[in-house]
Amino acid sequence: MPYRAPVSELKFVLDKVVGFDRVAATDRFAEATPETVDAILTEAGRMCEEVLAPLNPAGDLHPAHLENGVVRTSPGFAEGFAAIAEGGWLGMSADPDYGGMGLPIALTMAVNEMMGSACLSLQLNPLMTQGQIEALEAHASPEIQALYIPKLISGEWCGTMNLTEPQAGSDVGALRSRAEPNGDGTYAVTGQKIYISWGDNDFSGNICHLVLARLPDGAEGTKGISLFMVPKRIPDADGNPGVANALNVVSLEHKLGLHGSPTAVMQYDGATGWLVGEPHKGMAAMFTMMNNARLGVGVQGLSIAEAAMQHAVGYALERRQGRTPDGPEDNGGTILQHADVRRMVLSMKADTFAARALALDCAVALDMAKATGDADWQVRGAFLTPIAKSFGTDTGIKVAGDGIQVHGGMGFIEETGAAQYLRDVRVTAIYEGTNGIQAMDLVGRKLMDGGAAAFAVLDRIETTKNDALRDAVSDLRKLTEWMVGQDMQDRFAGSVSYLNAFARVLGVHYHLKAAESDDARAPLARFAAGRMLPEALAEMAKARTGAGELYAVSNEVIAA
Amino acid sequence: MPYRAPVSELKFVLDKVVGFDRVAATDRFAEATPETVDAILTEAGRMCEEVLAPLNPAGDLHPAHLENGVVRTSPGFAEGFAAIAEGGWLGMSADPDYGGMGLPIALTMAVNEMMGSACLSLQLNPLMTQGQIEALEAHASPEIQALYIPKLISGEWCGTMNLTEPQAGSDVGALRSRAEPNGDGTYAVTGQKIYISWGDNDFSGNICHLVLARLPDGAEGTKGISLFMVPKRIPDADGNPGVANALNVVSLEHKLGLHGSPTAVMQYDGATGWLVGEPHKGMAAMFTMMNNARLGVGVQGLSIAEAAMQHAVGYALERRQGRTPDGPEDNGGTILQHADVRRMVLSMKADTFAARALALDCAVALDMAKATGDADWQVRGAFLTPIAKSFGTDTGIKVAGDGIQVHGGMGFIEETGAAQYLRDVRVTAIYEGTNGIQAMDLVGRKLMDGGAAAFAVLDRIETTKNDALRDAVSDLRKLTEWMVGQDMQDRFAGSVSYLNAFARVLGVHYHLKAAESDDARAPLARFAAGRMLPEALAEMAKARTGAGELYAVSNEVIAA
Repeated sequence: MPYRAPVSELKFVLDKVVGFDRVAATDRFAEATPETVDAILTEAGRMCEEVLAPLNPAGDLHPAHLENGVVRTSPGFAEGFAAIAEGGWLGMSADPDYGGMGLPIALTMAVNEMMGSACLSLQLNPLMTQGQIEALEAHASPEIQALYIPKLISGEWCGTMNLTEPQAGSDVGALRSRAEPNGDGTYAVTGQKIYISWGDNDFSGNICHLVLARLPDGAEGTKGISLFMVPKRIPDADGNPGVANALNVVSLEHKLGLHGSPTAVMQYDGATGWLVGEPHKGMAAMFTMMNNARLGVGVQGLSIAEAAMQHAVGYALERRQGRTPDGPEDNGGTILQHADVRRMVLSMKADTFAARALALDCAVALDMAKATGDADWQVRGAFLTPIAKSFGTDTGIKVAGDGIQVHGGMGFIEETGAAQYLRDVRVTAIYEGTNGIQAMDLVGRKLMDGGAAAFAVLDRIETTKNDALRDAVSDLRKLTEWMVGQDMQDRFAGSVSYLNAFARVLGVHYHLKAAESDDARAPLARFAAGRMLPEALAEMAKARTGAGELYAVSNEVIAA
Repeated sequence: MPYRAPVSELKFVLDKVVGFDRVAATDRFAEATPETVDAILTEAGRMCEEVLAPLNPAGDLHPAHLENGVVRTSPGFAEGFAAIAEGGWLGMSADPDYGGMGLPIALTMAVNEMMGSACLSLQLNPLMTQGQIEALEAHASPEIQALYIPKLISGEWCGTMNLTEPQAGSDVGALRSRAEPNGDGTYAVTGQKIYISWGDNDFSGNICHLVLARLPDGAEGTKGISLFMVPKRIPDADGNPGVANALNVVSLEHKLGLHGSPTAVMQYDGATGWLVGEPHKGMAAMFTMMNNARLGVGVQGLSIAEAAMQHAVGYALERRQGRTPDGPEDNGGTILQHADVRRMVLSMKADTFAARALALDCAVALDMAKATGDADWQVRGAFLTPIAKSFGTDTGIKVAGDGIQVHGGMGFIEETGAAQYLRDVRVTAIYEGTNGIQAMDLVGRKLMDGGAAAFAVLDRIETTKNDALRDAVSDLRKLTEWMVGQDMQDRFAGSVSYLNAFARVLGVHYHLKAAESDDARAPLARFAAGRMLPEALAEMAKARTGAGELYAVSNEVIAA
């Protein structure tokens, strides 16, 4: 079954569940009228269905590969990227002064979701470029902004993020790449970076690498890191790609999935770079890029959940097999009539809905923060980001797994397409900060305020008329109070469970809100509550066990 | 880190957790002395470590493929199979009169586990052959037994199971393959079968296909199905492989994993077959084969859980990254010291232990039934089989997923090996009856006795001194009582959750039993109880929701 862009579902969630009308009511986003939103989602949706979705199998079967040091991308990807660029989808939320549309992040996420459902390995390219535009808008000099941002928005050039090194993964502060001043305002950047998504391609005029490296006087750890723009070709006086910079793609990774996305090992050998932001403040700049990229990756999980769910529903509505206990003798029912298949499909649907609402709720908070400068919105957005990232990607993995299961034996056969969803989405729980790192961020940094941000999120839900949800909110409040009273190791021990519980409580809240606006959604909301609330309670119990229990099992017993 | 056969762990679980001593105390299995068990597990373990484990990446990278209609197996697989055959591991539990060792199924499962950890795609071949031996022992004529069983035990010939057709998957009764009497006691078998694991290979003298087909007077549905032995080469008067039979491999599937195992589409064009068992009683014969194969597939899940867990532990003990809140400033700790990584590793370990105990507990029941003829043991084994199959395979998938996560970015790179475990194990939740089918079997057929079998299993646990477990057992008893009072659709709606809850309650029981014998296991048992019991409660809540909730969501809403 071909992918169908869920345009009306996206509008419903924006309008009825996450209060997008508040965003549209601000001066900054006054252009985001219902008509504009409709036009944008419809047009983007059509491109995703017609242009991007057909590329998805080709990206998987014909991976990007290195040919004499040059990356060759998958068949059709150049055309697909051109369609994305021409549609203006790269710079939807970028500054109109540089050619962007200045639209809310919530709409960018809605379009990103559809692009990711259609072809995740290609969508990763715009996601990286969008993050780079954002970082440059926030931190780069006017000259760098004027030179790079318009070309990134137009799609002439693409952007990458270079953080990781073999010894510096989650611990970015351990990086060894160095930058030496050249004396002319530029820097010579040297080092090796790994896991560089879309580190090169054969359809962009230039590749713009944002690279974390240490200046000669940079301190050890994260405090001594600076950010540099290191283009593949050094722009000439007219801003056109000039001579090749001293960098190259060493190799591409052979990955479980996302074969269409070239993941590069990059080598910088005194490559010419320009400082972005203040010296030694590279991590702050990187975090600007990363925070929204985290939400963007959560949306990637959602993308695959939606696509895998559609794919499984299509199969379950076609495939006839067996009969149900009260079904007709003639074996006429589809497998969707079987209780357990129906249960799987409904849970795919319920989780996908919750992941979408969570991502867009988070995006609305970020938009409101931008539009109003209100710190409460900023705090809310920051609090929801790790939850949206983790729950979105966990949901993508779970739904893709259920999608395989719904297909039965066919699910294990690659031609069916169900398995590719699982292979592609698996990395989303790892990159842009593993889901474990997200959970540590949630119970560490995001509870530094004594729980104020968490309580503010819960306050909005507590008014629910649903007793079971209200009880769960109350339990989650108590758990939050407990968390802020613990030392960091105990918090970390329960961090993933705490995040999981929070996501489920929010998920039920969104479902009930949807049912309030639309009676037809009440049965799915009841189904969702009947599953997510018991799961939330179990996660809350697990969240409280503390670190002592983990270290009571010795390394010797673990290694035995 | 190379795979290490968990010989002492297997012995511990056999001796201290599942009461293997009772099996060894029977006349039938008197040879299974502690010394014999030790020698067998040690010798099989060495073969798995030294001969089979090195084949695992080759099977993945160089899939079995079809060359001019002939299957070419992965490099080294012929030698690997020869080692398995020479070790006697094919016929461990087979009748000594035909060259088998006559040992308990529990030991076969222990050896199968190790072979599966080392190289799952190759191990699937012995598993199929073992199932065939069992079916022939139980149902075939003395002539067929005498001709085939010795050669299957010696590994000269291999066996397959042919059930599925494109329109007949979980619903075997929908099959269309036909068998016409040839008038000489043989039958002409015609039809297409799919998903035939190890449907052909290039190292066996013959391939013996057990094929389900309908005789001319066979009724519709499962009641009219008969079982036939259809060898690739028709044995000559001396029992040697003679002329080619009218069958061929149409194609091999391109699968998510298990690349080393050729999964064939088989075409039978009036192929000569011999009836196995009574006419129209093929399903009963197939069930003999399938029930133990189900346990065998549960063990395959366990195999991958063990291998993926070892692999992740090895990485977590080597990889240094970041520091823990109370760790040294010099960043000297491994990632195993991080609370959340430790949580993942412990849960991999706890689940793997539970899956092993469950599989061996089930095997002990089957052995006791065989040795004593006692119906209670038979009923216990039948009840535990679907739980062992589902929990073992779900655990394999979950642990392989966690293994990827522990590896961080490396987990997504194929060369690491973590991803292969997930790809290989994914099908175990599907084949030999999907886990949904297992759950339907549990709440349907296995609760037909009004819950007697379930209560008998719970009775043994209820004596625990652990309050939380005793409460969970009591809840599960009430849930079982509720289940037997519902109609089948309501049972099916909660079937997977009921099975999941049962597995977790059993899992905690096994952990506590282990801790009683060995103090060093108490911390892991506490960790396991602190996670599995809340999960069991959540599953029990979900199990009770009934089918009404599922059908309240209309097909239109699902397809929207």
